[in-house]
Amino acid sequence: MTQKIIGIDLGGTSVKFAILTKDGDVQDKWSIATNILDEGSHIVPDIIASLKDRLNDLGLTKDDILGIGMGSPGAINRDKGTVVGAYNLNWKTVQPVKEQIESALGIPFFIDNDANVAALGEKWKGAGENDPDVVFVTLGTGVGGGVVAGGNLIHGAGGAGGEIGHMVVDFDAPIMCTCGKLGCLETVTSATGIVNLGRRYAQTYAGDSELKRLIDSGEDVTAKVIFDLAKKGDVLGKIVYENFSRYLGIACANIACLLNPSAIVIGGGVSAAGDFLLDGLDEVFKANVFPQIIGSTKIKLAQLGNDAGIIGAASLVL
Amino acid sequence: MTQKIIGIDLGGTSVKFAILTKDGDVQDKWSIATNILDEGSHIVPDIIASLKDRLNDLGLTKDDILGIGMGSPGAINRDKGTVVGAYNLNWKTVQPVKEQIESALGIPFFIDNDANVAALGEKWKGAGENDPDVVFVTLGTGVGGGVVAGGNLIHGAGGAGGEIGHMVVDFDAPIMCTCGKLGCLETVTSATGIVNLGRRYAQTYAGDSELKRLIDSGEDVTAKVIFDLAKKGDVLGKIVYENFSRYLGIACANIACLLNPSAIVIGGGVSAAGDFLLDGLDEVFKANVFPQIIGSTKIKLAQLGNDAGIIGAASLVL
Repeated sequence: MTQKIIGIDLGGTSVKFAILTKDGDVQDKWSIATNILDEGSHIVPDIIASLKDRLNDLGLTKDDILGIGMGSPGAINRDKGTVVGAYNLNWKTVQPVKEQIESALGIPFFIDNDANVAALGEKWKGAGENDPDVVFVTLGTGVGGGVVAGGNLIHGAGGAGGEIGHMVVDFDAPIMCTCGKLGCLETVTSATGIVNLGRRYAQTYAGDSELKRLIDSGEDVTAKVIFDLAKKGDVLGKIVYENFSRYLGIACANIACLLNPSAIVIGGGVSAAGDFLLDGLDEVFKANVFPQIIGSTKIKLAQLGNDAGIIGAASLVL
Repeated sequence: MTQKIIGIDLGGTSVKFAILTKDGDVQDKWSIATNILDEGSHIVPDIIASLKDRLNDLGLTKDDILGIGMGSPGAINRDKGTVVGAYNLNWKTVQPVKEQIESALGIPFFIDNDANVAALGEKWKGAGENDPDVVFVTLGTGVGGGVVAGGNLIHGAGGAGGEIGHMVVDFDAPIMCTCGKLGCLETVTSATGIVNLGRRYAQTYAGDSELKRLIDSGEDVTAKVIFDLAKKGDVLGKIVYENFSRYLGIACANIACLLNPSAIVIGGGVSAAGDFLLDGLDEVFKANVFPQIIGSTKIKLAQLGNDAGIIGAASLVL
């Protein structure tokens, strides 16, 4: 029998698992709740128990598994296989994840951070089409990313490669970022950032707008509400959309000048706006990227959704 | 005898050669004039003749040479070893450089573009300290660059990786770049770009300034004149210097957020300003980069000067 690989996507709410072929085809998929009680001390034992059960049910032994890969929040030491400072897991101190899993299961274990692992997933089996040069940008509550260049995931000298959300792009009315800097991409293109833009432009926009009424009356507007209104022609909504496109489009153009990847893949909750998002972004991108790059670097939507993590994690084994 | 490697830096004025050990120590160095007459048809034969002569003089045969690497202007096909559109060599049509050199000398030949090769040189034997993640920015007549990430030179999908000069950074009063876009890094931080800034701020600056007098009286000011005046405290000169630092510092911060290289190495003629340049740049860089990156990514001055090309070219062989 040919060996399988296992991918694990560890999150604050659930732990997702998959068993895949070495070609990246998902053959089995399941998840368990993440128990963060007692300083997250149940998490790794729960993962081990769930893996043992499933392998047993499927009649698989450790010899059938080439390795296990995991994506985790927090700061990862890839060589030692440890995680520290993953606050949504209650992991404040160093967790020897690799050591625990390898000694319990006898299967080689590999780990990287969740944004990098999602990038690897989209690169391998998603919009990246397994090209050697792919950049992944995820627009969620924050803005994360991962860079694959020359076939390698780029961690950089201090492990902070792919911190795309902290590229400075807003020189108009820079907003303070959670990182302490001003004008980061995250402050204007994350789900929160889009709401920031709504409030910013509502202050000066005096015309007719449903979005303006919602904001002025203190309603809880979301990025989805803003983009839906923009699609329907709401003038303030369109102002937000155009500025979102401008900030993200220039960031993508600058990434492309540096790396000329075959694709910049946009994922995360905000990317649910789909072609509407892509259209505005592409226009700014093409106007601001080095002309020779138009054609070779394409802006694409992510294709794997929530599976990017388990698939990319499994690819760490290969 | 251990084998040597040869590096060639092909330019519009001269062709520089070096024979190096596999550790990158230059053992012999010479140059010839570039004869661009007759559509540059003498260039490759001249290179072959010069190599034959020198190897002969040194008593070396083709078996003593592991390979030859070359940096060239123009658009390079690395696999085929051809060059096209190198206008300062008068090479308008496709030149089969690899084929000509290999058939004449029987030594394996490798080629890449001049900016990439200079980046490899600084990465290997210069300020990059042979780290796997190093970005090189050259500030000359234009702004060029090269990206080494995860140990590999990054060419990207269309061969335009490292086009750092065309990152968009000026949103204040964007100047048209030779590439057709507005606000490129090159328009405000190349030698020409620094003069652009001098003219821009001279228009609105009304105070006392030697630089203002020079510009207003139509003198030919250069980047060197402007930086020398800034060093001496000329107020307009300092305004130019601060804005140059701001544009380049933000570009470097954004590069570091994406790649977290151990070093961003600044070379080219403008870098002769030395520590004065570094001080202003570093201040903006640190204020704008993701805080975790401060310490792991350092801004450094290039160390190899004109030798970066021959050394980096030779490294293509390895």
